[in-house]
Amino acid sequence: MSQPHVVIIGGGFGGLAAARALAHSPTRVTLIDRANHHLFQPLLYQVATAGLAPSDIAEPLRSILARQANAEVRLAEVVGVDLAARTVQLDDGASLIYDKLVVAAGSRTSWFGHDEWEPVAPGLKTLGDALEIRRRVLLAFERAEWTTDAAERGRLLTFVVVGGGPTGVEVAGALQEVARSTLRRDFRHLDPTATRVILVEAAGGVLNHMHRELQDAARRQLESLGVTVWTGRRVQEITEGRIVIDGEELRPGAIIWAAGVRPSPLAAALGAPLDRGGRVIVEPDTSLPGHPEVFVVGDMAAWSHGLERPLAGVAPVALAMGQHAAACILADLAGAARAPLRYLDKGSMATIGFNRAVVEVRRLRFSGFIAWLAWVFVHLMTLVGHRNRVVVFIKWAWAWWTADRSSRLLWDSSRAATAPSQVTEK
Amino acid sequence: MSQPHVVIIGGGFGGLAAARALAHSPTRVTLIDRANHHLFQPLLYQVATAGLAPSDIAEPLRSILARQANAEVRLAEVVGVDLAARTVQLDDGASLIYDKLVVAAGSRTSWFGHDEWEPVAPGLKTLGDALEIRRRVLLAFERAEWTTDAAERGRLLTFVVVGGGPTGVEVAGALQEVARSTLRRDFRHLDPTATRVILVEAAGGVLNHMHRELQDAARRQLESLGVTVWTGRRVQEITEGRIVIDGEELRPGAIIWAAGVRPSPLAAALGAPLDRGGRVIVEPDTSLPGHPEVFVVGDMAAWSHGLERPLAGVAPVALAMGQHAAACILADLAGAARAPLRYLDKGSMATIGFNRAVVEVRRLRFSGFIAWLAWVFVHLMTLVGHRNRVVVFIKWAWAWWTADRSSRLLWDSSRAATAPSQVTEK
Repeated sequence: MSQPHVVIIGGGFGGLAAARALAHSPTRVTLIDRANHHLFQPLLYQVATAGLAPSDIAEPLRSILARQANAEVRLAEVVGVDLAARTVQLDDGASLIYDKLVVAAGSRTSWFGHDEWEPVAPGLKTLGDALEIRRRVLLAFERAEWTTDAAERGRLLTFVVVGGGPTGVEVAGALQEVARSTLRRDFRHLDPTATRVILVEAAGGVLNHMHRELQDAARRQLESLGVTVWTGRRVQEITEGRIVIDGEELRPGAIIWAAGVRPSPLAAALGAPLDRGGRVIVEPDTSLPGHPEVFVVGDMAAWSHGLERPLAGVAPVALAMGQHAAACILADLAGAARAPLRYLDKGSMATIGFNRAVVEVRRLRFSGFIAWLAWVFVHLMTLVGHRNRVVVFIKWAWAWWTADRSSRLLWDSSRAATAPSQVTEK
Repeated sequence: MSQPHVVIIGGGFGGLAAARALAHSPTRVTLIDRANHHLFQPLLYQVATAGLAPSDIAEPLRSILARQANAEVRLAEVVGVDLAARTVQLDDGASLIYDKLVVAAGSRTSWFGHDEWEPVAPGLKTLGDALEIRRRVLLAFERAEWTTDAAERGRLLTFVVVGGGPTGVEVAGALQEVARSTLRRDFRHLDPTATRVILVEAAGGVLNHMHRELQDAARRQLESLGVTVWTGRRVQEITEGRIVIDGEELRPGAIIWAAGVRPSPLAAALGAPLDRGGRVIVEPDTSLPGHPEVFVVGDMAAWSHGLERPLAGVAPVALAMGQHAAACILADLAGAARAPLRYLDKGSMATIGFNRAVVEVRRLRFSGFIAWLAWVFVHLMTLVGHRNRVVVFIKWAWAWWTADRSSRLLWDSSRAATAPSQVTEK
């Protein structure tokens, strides 16, 4: 066991890419995650809107790394890192000694200082989040179906999505589509086309990271689908079933928070300088300043060497950083010099329901059906697991033809199994 | 709205069959269920053992009945039935007036007077149950992987299944197979073939409802797979992680309760005579004695006219009873006489992992690979939803070739998101 031990914290795109890039290398790799699966986050909104099942977009880390003989997986939460002793402490009491450490713990939902909004406006970062949002949306439809009060029905059929980034845009588009094409035939007492999806964004437009032209295209596509887009408007208050936006009070059937993320608390705990967003400012080779044996990659890291703004917290960046950290470790082992990270912009895309999307790859910008086909192609090709690809393709093709949603299950409807309290015989 | 109102309690095989048989009839149908989906119970054990995802075996009731114009679905729990006033009370405060009532509320797990065993030995009747069992089994493997104590590892890799009926046999076989063929390559520090699955049954053999020849075949097939079969042995005590069987104490990694079911509490509440199992003794036409406008079908009903023992609580019986109740309602409307139920025995089958099963259809009995092919065919053909059939077929074919399990997700690993408590800088 004289091989150097590489400990990787986090099984997302960054951590998993690092682990895979170390296959066949003379290292021992331990990948730690508090979930037992890699989550394909870009499609998480489809679980929240009942289009896909959890297992379609999540793959157990063990099975991904099953054939990589030098890799081990550990289901645990990291509770501490001792940079001096080079150890990582786990919540099960164990302590791992590392030679190289890759910190890729990702980001969480940020309610911008209003953590009390979490239970009333759930975010969308984990499978649990997606299932909770799905539950709330489906229950709102069920309740609307049977209320006799028209105002109450209108209230229950209103959904507010906070945040006009890719997640907010995708959730809003998908929600409107669920109502439009799927739930229409399932309900008798309500007109699901009366559903009102409101997308709220504090800035002047949606998808602000993209070119102005695509921001406008995205807005037009959302509105053509029936989504109400409120830009330049701020959320002031949220309580159970109630949201105040620029003084206007709404009581929607569900509120979904897609407005922001913050890095894992591990970022601040590493003791290095942070950027405004709380991310660790890393060296050109993605290492922690002063600790060449520690790398910070993905959503937790701010890499901005020679750039106007740091690389974005998206999957392709995390992937490239994870691979680069692994390349630096291999260079160290070979006694070679490390190269700085060179990131080739993969562009960005977002989809707005079926048949609509916006795509930007450097100077190239397009929207509409062709953009949507590009989106489908990229997402199917990068989805981990061959079986998942086949199953997701079938579900999408089915949904595209039949406008049916496959995963509208409430398996924990929070209804207790109450016994009949009264049965009267004549 | 002068059409008679048929209220159906329960969206399982019986209730759903009744609702469907009333399509195109001059009735209004309201189907009440506390879940929003029909569950294909015969494959629930595959969700518990990580072979299938919840959405593969559950279909929203609304989408099943979407095209049946005279049917409505209501997500609610029935809290009372007033037979004199002909009303059903719901937990949301509403009260429905019926002309005809079909009670098909099914059965629940019975711990035979030991309800305190429920949290420590979960049953397998709902999707929630299946996900809880899956979570316990997968966590036991994760913990076994990282413990340094050999005795503890052996303990964590022992699973006890209580009850040698079809569910117990299928769970035990599938569990042994998960360990054998799937988890083997995923773990580094343990030999999942060391997994010990113990199937405990108080009677003298497993699958006691089948012919002796098939009981023996099932036992042989279980043992050839590696399952330890303990017959004629009784469970005396269960506490968290501990079970006492005939004085022998075990501390297994998970305990699964598949020993018995009891009817929904609605059965007792209807005020009619019950059989030893607590089921409502029904008339030859499946109606409630003294209440020709009320039918009791499926697992809640004991129908034994001219039989040695009542019809079994299995899907084909529930289906036939539900259809018969609907036929009686249609006969009433037409002013015709009701016929008594005539049930043609469909036989029974159980599978023991891949490639092994036992099948009994009247005098015909067979086991092994051909029986397994018959099992696969019957279950795929009767699975509700064309899309589900395609997806499940692909997953089974994939699993059969690769021995991979597709749904090994822990999305609620009961690990709180703890913040790093200490990071020490040098």
